[in-house]
Amino acid sequence: MKFKVLSIFLVAVAFVYAQKPVDYVNPFIGTSNFGATNPGAIAPRGMASVSPFNVAVEKDAGWLSNPYVKQNTFLTGFTHVNLSGVGCPDLGVILTMPTTGNLKTNHMEYGTTYTDEVSSAGYYSVNLSKYKIKTELTATTRVGVSRYSFPAGESNILVNLGLGLTNEQGAMVKVVSNTEIEGMRTVGSFCYNSPEHAYPVYFVAKFSKPAEEFGAWKKPRKYNGVEAQWMTYNGKTRLMKGYTKEVVGDSIGAYMRYNFKQKTSVEVKIGVSYVSIENARENLEQETATKSFEDIYTETKAVWNKTLSTVEVEGGTTDDKTIFYTALYHTQIHPNTLNDFNGDYPEIATGKIGNTKGTRYTVFSLWDTYRNYHPLMSTLYPAQQSNMVNSMLSMYKENGWLPKWELNSTETFTMVGDPAPVVIADTYLRGITDFNVDEAYAAMVKGATQLNNNPLRPGIKEYWENGYLSVDGGGEGPVSSTEEYNISDFAIAQLAKTLGKKDDYKKFYNQSLSYRKLFDKKLKLMRPKNSDGSWYTPFDPYKGANFEKNVGYIEGNAWQYAFMVPHDIKGLMKLMGGKKQFVSHLDYIFDNNQFDMANEPDIAYPFLYNYSKGDEWKTQQRVQQLIKTYFTNTPAGLPGNDDTGTMSAWLVYAMMGIYPVSPTTPVYTISTPRFTSMTIHLDTTYYKNKKLVIKRTGDLDGKIKSIKLNNKVVQGYFINHQDLLNGAVLEIKMD
Amino acid sequence: MKFKVLSIFLVAVAFVYAQKPVDYVNPFIGTSNFGATNPGAIAPRGMASVSPFNVAVEKDAGWLSNPYVKQNTFLTGFTHVNLSGVGCPDLGVILTMPTTGNLKTNHMEYGTTYTDEVSSAGYYSVNLSKYKIKTELTATTRVGVSRYSFPAGESNILVNLGLGLTNEQGAMVKVVSNTEIEGMRTVGSFCYNSPEHAYPVYFVAKFSKPAEEFGAWKKPRKYNGVEAQWMTYNGKTRLMKGYTKEVVGDSIGAYMRYNFKQKTSVEVKIGVSYVSIENARENLEQETATKSFEDIYTETKAVWNKTLSTVEVEGGTTDDKTIFYTALYHTQIHPNTLNDFNGDYPEIATGKIGNTKGTRYTVFSLWDTYRNYHPLMSTLYPAQQSNMVNSMLSMYKENGWLPKWELNSTETFTMVGDPAPVVIADTYLRGITDFNVDEAYAAMVKGATQLNNNPLRPGIKEYWENGYLSVDGGGEGPVSSTEEYNISDFAIAQLAKTLGKKDDYKKFYNQSLSYRKLFDKKLKLMRPKNSDGSWYTPFDPYKGANFEKNVGYIEGNAWQYAFMVPHDIKGLMKLMGGKKQFVSHLDYIFDNNQFDMANEPDIAYPFLYNYSKGDEWKTQQRVQQLIKTYFTNTPAGLPGNDDTGTMSAWLVYAMMGIYPVSPTTPVYTISTPRFTSMTIHLDTTYYKNKKLVIKRTGDLDGKIKSIKLNNKVVQGYFINHQDLLNGAVLEIKMD
Repeated sequence: MKFKVLSIFLVAVAFVYAQKPVDYVNPFIGTSNFGATNPGAIAPRGMASVSPFNVAVEKDAGWLSNPYVKQNTFLTGFTHVNLSGVGCPDLGVILTMPTTGNLKTNHMEYGTTYTDEVSSAGYYSVNLSKYKIKTELTATTRVGVSRYSFPAGESNILVNLGLGLTNEQGAMVKVVSNTEIEGMRTVGSFCYNSPEHAYPVYFVAKFSKPAEEFGAWKKPRKYNGVEAQWMTYNGKTRLMKGYTKEVVGDSIGAYMRYNFKQKTSVEVKIGVSYVSIENARENLEQETATKSFEDIYTETKAVWNKTLSTVEVEGGTTDDKTIFYTALYHTQIHPNTLNDFNGDYPEIATGKIGNTKGTRYTVFSLWDTYRNYHPLMSTLYPAQQSNMVNSMLSMYKENGWLPKWELNSTETFTMVGDPAPVVIADTYLRGITDFNVDEAYAAMVKGATQLNNNPLRPGIKEYWENGYLSVDGGGEGPVSSTEEYNISDFAIAQLAKTLGKKDDYKKFYNQSLSYRKLFDKKLKLMRPKNSDGSWYTPFDPYKGANFEKNVGYIEGNAWQYAFMVPHDIKGLMKLMGGKKQFVSHLDYIFDNNQFDMANEPDIAYPFLYNYSKGDEWKTQQRVQQLIKTYFTNTPAGLPGNDDTGTMSAWLVYAMMGIYPVSPTTPVYTISTPRFTSMTIHLDTTYYKNKKLVIKRTGDLDGKIKSIKLNNKVVQGYFINHQDLLNGAVLEIKMD
Repeated sequence: MKFKVLSIFLVAVAFVYAQKPVDYVNPFIGTSNFGATNPGAIAPRGMASVSPFNVAVEKDAGWLSNPYVKQNTFLTGFTHVNLSGVGCPDLGVILTMPTTGNLKTNHMEYGTTYTDEVSSAGYYSVNLSKYKIKTELTATTRVGVSRYSFPAGESNILVNLGLGLTNEQGAMVKVVSNTEIEGMRTVGSFCYNSPEHAYPVYFVAKFSKPAEEFGAWKKPRKYNGVEAQWMTYNGKTRLMKGYTKEVVGDSIGAYMRYNFKQKTSVEVKIGVSYVSIENARENLEQETATKSFEDIYTETKAVWNKTLSTVEVEGGTTDDKTIFYTALYHTQIHPNTLNDFNGDYPEIATGKIGNTKGTRYTVFSLWDTYRNYHPLMSTLYPAQQSNMVNSMLSMYKENGWLPKWELNSTETFTMVGDPAPVVIADTYLRGITDFNVDEAYAAMVKGATQLNNNPLRPGIKEYWENGYLSVDGGGEGPVSSTEEYNISDFAIAQLAKTLGKKDDYKKFYNQSLSYRKLFDKKLKLMRPKNSDGSWYTPFDPYKGANFEKNVGYIEGNAWQYAFMVPHDIKGLMKLMGGKKQFVSHLDYIFDNNQFDMANEPDIAYPFLYNYSKGDEWKTQQRVQQLIKTYFTNTPAGLPGNDDTGTMSAWLVYAMMGIYPVSPTTPVYTISTPRFTSMTIHLDTTYYKNKKLVIKRTGDLDGKIKSIKLNNKVVQGYFINHQDLLNGAVLEIKMD
């Protein structure tokens, strides 16, 4: 009996301390195994975030896309603009570092090991071993906030603008007063592309305690030539004590110095902006003004809790809740806010400063996110999704083209395909229609049909002429690109149909099936073709897994792209020779290590068994197995790059028991809900009901016995988007 | 008869075209033989100047202190802030370059040979051979103005912020519109000193014709490490077409591009400021507004003519007039204006922005200029001299110390000694008293007596204890420094006497004779001593000529410093053993190649014969010989570095026939006037008479037979400053 009382007590404690969604967020998930997330502090969709930076040692030794790796041990500061879950290095700059004792500016000298890391939504803290400084981080949308608790004695706060994750160089810094530093840092060339579009991020840093000494430092380029003999300072770091003018260069920084009589906390607020130092200052003032670290964290935590409470769950383990809410948290990082508090933002391509009344979103990794992320936003956060579509349309207005992989108003042209039409059409077809659909339609048709100087669709001419991109046609990953263009053309067709454009519908729908020309009936797989129509030989359908370079495919092999025609699964099934062959193929992929959970092309595959009556239990089994294998409450708890929330969106859907298996076919396919009950609070601006409840009765590992929507039995495993969201209760009974 | 008519006609032409002082200026004088002047366009005491830059090839190969060398042939642009006649590299930045055809940003590629150089006061023009572009330059005080006459076709104007004379690196540039570029460039570490005080110069460039295309470029540091394999752009120049954000880095620039249907001129105005971009823009607006190149040049030329017309000459050859007015022109370049049009200027040491109602002057090369330059300014331009003293006192207020070698509000601590008291006391003793003399006196006493942490007088403790700096005492050039401190202490003594501070007078006067302790009676020369009082051995009095490093002396040897106690020539004569030995020593120096016309310590020596009755003819002879040898109407027509006008001031005085042989003894010593008549228009704010006329009758190469001031015979070869300037006519009759 004693034991039972105790366990009730423990449950009660857990209830008190971890009852709210926000309390289940574990930002360490994804900080190892190339998840590329970071445990730093951020507000939902924040422009600013503060991440510990512990990759200085390995940064130049490889392709590193994140400021933090859990298993690393050498911390060199905290960066104030960061990307989460991406596959290329950029940002990771405006680095601060508290130290004690003599001033050191070389990160290899001042870096330290650390202990006692704590991270939750909007908060991170760590103890710096060398200095006995506790560092705590929080953030508002545009301001990173730090609290450094120093021991008594000499202390320093560095603002290091040399070190960063980006490979761009160049910064400016100016000490404004003994409580303020302003400056800018050049970032860009994401994925080693478009270095000519590298751009500035501006900042203003305010310190809660006036420095007793301040200054800047600069380590200039080493000078060669005869003159260097007179330059005793050649290539050495210069400390510029009391300096208050602009310092520019590649390896520069500024510092504040103190001598504390007793333990003292200093709060540092850093406002950022992609427009100007003035705007960075205004962002700082408007969002944090006289608020303390505590005030700010309390507010940010509350905002996080409100955001995450869109979905409330019951049942499931603490780990289930943790991976679920952390995934939901990861879907609320990118796309993020680009505009300043006053609405200003840098336009794409024009060089002008635009102004927006809503939010101008940025970081659109559309090749990833069109598949499930944006449908999820349409389901859970339709106002955000609407705003994102409007941001994409603004980009079109500015740039003349819809975005492909947009980052801070630069088009990085990363990855292949033309995913924007899928996102926009899918949004519209899910009933989120508060954007200019005619303009959107014109934009997508332009991208899909302009044959010359089309930056979105390389190889477009042969695509329209022959139906596919050829190996020798110059386009990248010709099979992958053909499939991507097909998906996009299907999206345009669906929207055309809805808008009553029958001819367009036919044209784009027909084109969306052109992948069939690449189907090799012998192999029962898509296979690259030469421009003369012959098959590319020799061909190895296994080549291309694990990001191996290969002819035909982008980041995958023939198996991983075998089913990537979600809009024509039934057609594909026929091509393959029917249900049996289709399922056998699917099984082959899963059972022979050809399924890649870490990348997007095949992530819908576990749900495809639902297209084969009688095999739906395999979807249920595969999905639960994949969750168990790849998604855990550990730093390695993501299968790979989170891809700006795409992997997390997969998990959220998979745990909800529904999946948008074919974007622009606004239908969900059903698998096992992870929780016994989930309440989704719907946005009544877009949906009729206030909430949707998804219930599971019976064993998680069982097979689905029945599906009821509002007490009516659902035939099959597909439910229309509107039916689901206007239904009130989805009940799934397990065997 | 025909011949005679023609020659009268020629004279008439010469009269029409070259009658005014401004027309005699040949800015090519000093552009070879290390004169370090440049032929660019500048207004009197301009902050901005525009100089052709033709030293890109040799820049890093040696110690090069000027943006232009006459015999060079490869021009890579036009720089907008420049130093004239100095011995160390700095400034020479904000470089523009017009080109045609494809855009090239590497100066080794776009550089060109050139022809048809023309230079006059406030104007320079050249034809760029490769491009057939005529470039013309002019300037106002704070704005450099260029007119590029392009042939039809593609044309470019580069603003290159990478290349420069300074060894500092780092710049920012931003294209504001198709007619405007703004930015900043880091300069500093003059004489390879104080790199930690490197500072920005800001600019705004306005183009008279809107560019059809514009952009920026950046050549980043080459990236090492594994990551570089993905950076196809590693270390390459990036062209950023249409880019309108800030670009920062070491090797950057911006460009405007045109395609002209016909020959077209573009005027470019570049306002500069040491305070801010906003001030640079205001300087540009206020000084040039809507004025054309022609308007501006006409005005600047008129200002030059007015300035130079302070002295009007008759007689002498055209070359005589040319070297005279060019020398006078060279005295009106530095010290130059530091403050913006609105009065703002960067204070020294405080990091603050000050504001002045008068002119804040900068570039005080006081080790050079105290000897004759500032007395000349007191004679000819007393309002300027007063303003310069007030600028020096402002520096004292800001910095706590009088300047030593001040450059754009940085103290470069170049050279030795403590020259500011000499300049200030000399000014006061010449009757220019409109400054706070009490404060000035306190400032000089502080510099002369503060024993600890005294940046002006290294070795001050042993100087006051033993009367001299010792070889092992740590001070630089101990004999030179002792002599310099003596001269300075004499200056303080003279001012103390005038202010009625008798005790101070005695103290400083006594100390001013302490050099005598270094007089080796055997050698009859000053000689370095050890701190124990023993002579430094082995000692070679010839070592140290031609800037050879040596123990005891700075930029000179024992012979060149043998007479550098101008305040105690009679005492020195006694030490040497009397008149005969004194003159024999002087002769030895001149006859045995120990006189260095190219450096300051001995430049008064030719006038010292006047201290020996009966030997004055030697002064007359030596001075005329030196003028003939070293000062010519050729690029090599200065003996060496102009030293911010010091060499030119020597020439002006020498040609006027008067020389301020001992600063702070307000006396001129007499030699042969070069012209038969000179009219010096006096500033009646400071002097009673409107003008002083100096007349010479008889042969230039003859000996002086009589000297009359206002018809009264002058006994000896010395005339008091007040007597001379309040006299109306000085008549010198030659044998």
